[in-house]
Amino acid sequence: MPRFFVGPEQILGEGVLLDVEDRRHLAVLRLTPEETITVCDGEGTDYICRYTGGDAAEILARRPSTGEPSVDCTVYAAFSKGDRMDLVIQKSVELGAVRIVLFPSARCVARYEDKGLEKKLARWGKIALEAAKQSGRGRVPAVDAVSSFSEAVSDASTADTALFFYEDERQCGFREALEAGLPARRIALMTGPEGGFAPEEAALAREKMQLCSLGPRILRCETAPVAALAAIMFARGELS
Amino acid sequence: MPRFFVGPEQILGEGVLLDVEDRRHLAVLRLTPEETITVCDGEGTDYICRYTGGDAAEILARRPSTGEPSVDCTVYAAFSKGDRMDLVIQKSVELGAVRIVLFPSARCVARYEDKGLEKKLARWGKIALEAAKQSGRGRVPAVDAVSSFSEAVSDASTADTALFFYEDERQCGFREALEAGLPARRIALMTGPEGGFAPEEAALAREKMQLCSLGPRILRCETAPVAALAAIMFARGELS
Repeated sequence: MPRFFVGPEQILGEGVLLDVEDRRHLAVLRLTPEETITVCDGEGTDYICRYTGGDAAEILARRPSTGEPSVDCTVYAAFSKGDRMDLVIQKSVELGAVRIVLFPSARCVARYEDKGLEKKLARWGKIALEAAKQSGRGRVPAVDAVSSFSEAVSDASTADTALFFYEDERQCGFREALEAGLPARRIALMTGPEGGFAPEEAALAREKMQLCSLGPRILRCETAPVAALAAIMFARGELS
Repeated sequence: MPRFFVGPEQILGEGVLLDVEDRRHLAVLRLTPEETITVCDGEGTDYICRYTGGDAAEILARRPSTGEPSVDCTVYAAFSKGDRMDLVIQKSVELGAVRIVLFPSARCVARYEDKGLEKKLARWGKIALEAAKQSGRGRVPAVDAVSSFSEAVSDASTADTALFFYEDERQCGFREALEAGLPARRIALMTGPEGGFAPEEAALAREKMQLCSLGPRILRCETAPVAALAAIMFARGELS
């Protein structure tokens, strides 16, 4: 069933007012009046609606969204080039991340100037919205960018369990670190750029986060956050 | 350190004979004689070598490859379109799959004729080789294609634990299914095409495999196998 996200102001008593983008989407889907759609308020409620034509739909039933995991997991990923960033955002939303935060890192190849970043953020926001629709999420995860590595670490360190994946970490493994933090309500996971984190970044992160290894195989920068998030969701019963 | 895979016949006493492809790769890397490379025989042994120029390298040390997981996990993925198949292969190799088997399924959009498939398999084999080099694997996982869904099921069902991910499965979750099968030495995981498995396919699979759900969020066809493999590796201590 096609899924749409609306703002609370679009829910009017027994009806829903769709916006221009959604009407365009309905046209692409060739949806005709009387067909059923799901409208989600992005705050935990799904509305099963009958599309009545134009910009209007009638609410048939209300039910809690089922697509939100019981754990708030934020993915902190270093800026990367090309479509890698798109992939991290799309997959993180599918797998249940609550938010995605992008940050610059010493060895980042990708650099974004203010204007370029603004455009990119708009694009990434759309990718997150589409992934949320497709995967049946109950909210659309925000995609944010911070201006420095230390800001990302500060932000991440407010989580109950803040994991920093570092390939040179030999003391602590991912599973051990995650199990030590159970049952965390808020988890942060941070992964590096193509060239990995610089030792001084790891040193800074060590003060506020738990460093851990992702195992003996070297994962690409876009694979690491997706694999780590999938594992966290699995460990929390959210892939079952 | 750059990594190369060679056949056993290329290891000659205290030296290694590199092939044309590897020499091309060395040229791309601008490697000069006296620099150090790792050569892997694809059978569990890494050779630390000094490149001596041309097609020759001298073996300095031998050690067991560290990139092979303790569990043999084969990924069975339905054919999919565009670069999704590439992604599944690359990520599966990075995450430690022992083999990747592709198969046709009722709702597959992608169809390959014999000749087209042959070309594709060559391309996918190269993707697997590159991913094995980059991630530090001790072997290059094979990428195979079977000609029918039932052949894929038969092949998968020889594993100690054979998991069939089906979005309409309500009885059994992934974690439960995996834990019931522990400590399996050989695991098979099978995921469907863009449109999901057809009910008759699920019925056929149910006779020989364990059906299980991947959770309440709908994962794209290229996300499901990667997420499932990451979770299995995590559960087996291979992401730590």
